[in-house]
Amino acid sequence: MSLIVQKYGGSSVADAESIKRVAKRIVETRKAGNDVVVAVSAMGDSTDELLDLAHQVTPIPAPRELDMLLTAGERISMALLAMSIRSMGHDARSFTGSQAGMITDARHGQARIVDVTPGRVRDALDEGAIAIVAGFQGFNRGTGDITTLGRGGSDTTAVALAAALDADVCEIYTDVDGIFTADPRVVPRARKIDRISSEEMLELAANGAKVLYIRAVEYARRHGVTLHVRSSFNNNEGTIVFNAPEPTAPDEASPDRENSESPVEEPLIAGVATDLSEAKITVVGVPDIPGKAAQIFNIVAKTGANIDMIVQNVSAAATGLTDISFTLPKSDGQTVLTALTVEQEDVGYRGLQYDDQIGKLALVGAGMRTNAGVSAKLFTALYEAGINIEMISTSEIRISVVTRADTVNDALRVVHTAFGLDADDEAVVHGGTGR
Amino acid sequence: MSLIVQKYGGSSVADAESIKRVAKRIVETRKAGNDVVVAVSAMGDSTDELLDLAHQVTPIPAPRELDMLLTAGERISMALLAMSIRSMGHDARSFTGSQAGMITDARHGQARIVDVTPGRVRDALDEGAIAIVAGFQGFNRGTGDITTLGRGGSDTTAVALAAALDADVCEIYTDVDGIFTADPRVVPRARKIDRISSEEMLELAANGAKVLYIRAVEYARRHGVTLHVRSSFNNNEGTIVFNAPEPTAPDEASPDRENSESPVEEPLIAGVATDLSEAKITVVGVPDIPGKAAQIFNIVAKTGANIDMIVQNVSAAATGLTDISFTLPKSDGQTVLTALTVEQEDVGYRGLQYDDQIGKLALVGAGMRTNAGVSAKLFTALYEAGINIEMISTSEIRISVVTRADTVNDALRVVHTAFGLDADDEAVVHGGTGR
Repeated sequence: MSLIVQKYGGSSVADAESIKRVAKRIVETRKAGNDVVVAVSAMGDSTDELLDLAHQVTPIPAPRELDMLLTAGERISMALLAMSIRSMGHDARSFTGSQAGMITDARHGQARIVDVTPGRVRDALDEGAIAIVAGFQGFNRGTGDITTLGRGGSDTTAVALAAALDADVCEIYTDVDGIFTADPRVVPRARKIDRISSEEMLELAANGAKVLYIRAVEYARRHGVTLHVRSSFNNNEGTIVFNAPEPTAPDEASPDRENSESPVEEPLIAGVATDLSEAKITVVGVPDIPGKAAQIFNIVAKTGANIDMIVQNVSAAATGLTDISFTLPKSDGQTVLTALTVEQEDVGYRGLQYDDQIGKLALVGAGMRTNAGVSAKLFTALYEAGINIEMISTSEIRISVVTRADTVNDALRVVHTAFGLDADDEAVVHGGTGR
Repeated sequence: MSLIVQKYGGSSVADAESIKRVAKRIVETRKAGNDVVVAVSAMGDSTDELLDLAHQVTPIPAPRELDMLLTAGERISMALLAMSIRSMGHDARSFTGSQAGMITDARHGQARIVDVTPGRVRDALDEGAIAIVAGFQGFNRGTGDITTLGRGGSDTTAVALAAALDADVCEIYTDVDGIFTADPRVVPRARKIDRISSEEMLELAANGAKVLYIRAVEYARRHGVTLHVRSSFNNNEGTIVFNAPEPTAPDEASPDRENSESPVEEPLIAGVATDLSEAKITVVGVPDIPGKAAQIFNIVAKTGANIDMIVQNVSAAATGLTDISFTLPKSDGQTVLTALTVEQEDVGYRGLQYDDQIGKLALVGAGMRTNAGVSAKLFTALYEAGINIEMISTSEIRISVVTRADTVNDALRVVHTAFGLDADDEAVVHGGTGR
C-alpha cells in the first residue's frame, strides 16, 4: 500500500461541483489501494474576497487577525471536501493546520515551518480514513496563534506532510497538465515535460515558471520528496519532479531518470521561463577599488530585497570608475533606491538608474553543463530575431538574459523553437491558479 | 473597573460598515474604563450560505465536518472585528472557541458546555487588550474536534464567558431595544420591559419570545449572571434580566428590583408571548385506569420529543374512557404519532388526533402569584373578543392557553390591552436576528 499526498489548488475546488469532482478523484485513489492525505486551498477567489473584506474594514489589517481571517478559507473547502467524500461512503476527516501539526515560527503572513507533527493525520490513516488538511496554515507553539505560510503555502503544506509522513509521492494538482517547456499561453507549441530534476525545476520556478513555488520545490528537494505535477481536469500523467542523486555517490548515478527513459533521449534543455516582475538598478560611476561591490550589496541586503542577476562592467581605465547593475523585484525597487541614495556620499558613486521595463528569459537544463554550444545557440537565435541582450548571467544549469520587456515573449518563442522544444500539437490551457 | 461581556449577533456585524460601527461601540465601552470581552456571531446570512454550500455537496453532511465548516463563519467576523478595533488604536485579539477554552461534550451541532477555561482571554485582558471570542463554537477534549453549540449558541458563549470570568454584566446586543411586553411586529404598542426576573424571562422565552434563547437564560440564572438585552443600533438602555434572590433567603428579598424602582410600580404582568410552532396530539379513548398516562408519556419520552402542555379530560363515567391531549413542536409530530401507533394495542386507546393549526398564548408575570383575578381577566378578554380557548395550563408565574392558530395574534393584542400593557408610542422594529 502506497501513501499518496495530493494537493488541490483553489481553482480545483472553486464550487460545489468541483469539490465533488475532486472528492471522486480522491476516492478513486483510495479505492486503488492507497492511503491518501490531501492538502487543499481555499475555494476559487475566496481568499481575495476575504482580503477585500479586511481592506473594507481597515487599510492595514493587523497581521495576526489577517491570518485568523484568511484561514477561514481552507476551513470551508476542507470541510466541504471531507463531507463530500463521506457522502460517497468513505471515511474522511478534515484537520486544520494546527490539528495536523504544522508548527511554524510566529511570522504572520509568511511563517516558516519549524516542525511537522502529524500524529492525528497518521491516526486517521491507521483507522482507514482519508485525511484532509488545510493548506497554507500552521500555528506557533509559543504564542498559540494561527499563522499562514504566504504565497504557495498550500504546495508547501503538501510537501511538508509528504516528507513528515514519508509518502511515496506528492501529487500537486493544478489547472494545467504539468510543467511545460515554456508558458503555453505565450508558446502554444510548448511541450509538457515528463520528468525534470528538482534542481532544474528550481531554476525554472526561480525564473518565472508559476506552476510550482520555489519554496515547495526546495522543501521537496531537501527532504527527498518526489513531486507529480498534474491536472485535476483529466487523468493524464503530468510532470515528475525527481531528486537527482547526490554528486558524492557516483555509483548510484541517475537511477530515477534511467528507470524511465534512456539518457540519450534526455533533452538538452528542460524548459524556458520568462519573468516580467523584475526591475534593473544601475549604480553609475562606482570607484573601481576593492570592497565597493560588497559595500553596495550590504546596503541592499539590509533592505531585505531579493536581488537576482548582478553584472559589473569592465572598468574604464581612464576614469577608474565602473557601473554595477542588478535586477530585483519591482516591489522592492523604491526601498532599495532610497537606501542607496542615503549612502551615496559614503559609497562615492555618481548616480542611480532605475529601469522597470525589462524582461528576463532563462534557459534551464542539466544537459547544458556539458554542452558548450548552448550559449552560442541562444545568443544567435536572439540576434537573428533582432532582440537586444542587456544582461547575461549563467549557472551550471541555466542561462538568463535580460531584454526589453516588450520583446521577451518574442524571445521566448524564438528560443523555444531554436532548441527544438516545439511540440507537434498545441497545448490546452485552463484559466486561473490557486494558492 | 468593571468587566463587561458583550454579544453581537449576525445582523449587528452583517457587513464591513456594521463591523466598524460595532468596533466603535466596543472601543467606547473600553474608553469608559471597562475591561471588555466580546462574543460575536457569523456575519449576516453567512451561516445560511455555508449550510447551502454543504447541501450542494451532500444532502446529509457529516456532523463533524458541518461543525468544521460552520465555525469558519465566526472566524471571519471575529478577525474583522479585531482588526477594526486595532485600526482604532486599541489592542484586540480574536480567539476561537478552543482558544477561549469553551470545552464541550462531543455532540456535533448541539454540544453542551462542560467547562470554560478562558486563560488566554484573561491574559489578554490583563495585558490591556479587548478579547473577541467566536460565538457558537467549542471543542471536545477527548476527540480534539471542533463543536458547535446549536441554536442560540452565541448567546450561550457570551453568558458562559461572563460566568467564568465573573463579569459584572453580560450585554446581549440585538436589533430590537430589549424585551417587550409582546412582539412589537404584532402589537405596535408593545412596551419595552426595563427589568425582568430570569424566571419570568425563562417563561417568556419558553413560550415564544425569540430575543433570548432559553438555554442562555438558564445558564445565566444558574450562574448568577445579570443580562442586559439592548439594541446595537442606538445607545438606549435595554432590558435587565436579573436573578431573583433564592427563596431560602427572605432577608435579602428582591434587592435588584427594589434598588431601581418601588415595588408598587412593579407591573403585575411582565409580558405576553405567542408561539405558532407547536401542534396538538389527542389520544382518544384511553382506559381511565391508573398508569395509562405514565405509559403514554413514557412512549413519547423515548422519542426525545419535548412535550409542553398536557391536559386530561374528566372521564366519562359511562364508558370508563378519557382523552389525553398534549402539545409538542410540530417537527416532532410525525415521530411521536408513529411511536404511539406502534403501541396502540398495548396502551388500549381508541385513536389519535393530530392538529397543527393551534396557537399558544402565554401570560407571564411574577405578580400573578398573589393575584387571583388574573385568570378571570384573561378568559374574559378572550371571550369578549370571540376567541375560543381549547387548552389551559398554568404555573406559578404563567398562564398559557391554546387557541386556533389564526386567532392567536388577535388574542395577543386583546390581552395586551386588557392587562394595561399598551404603551403611548409605537415601538420601532428592525429586521432579522442573529444566531
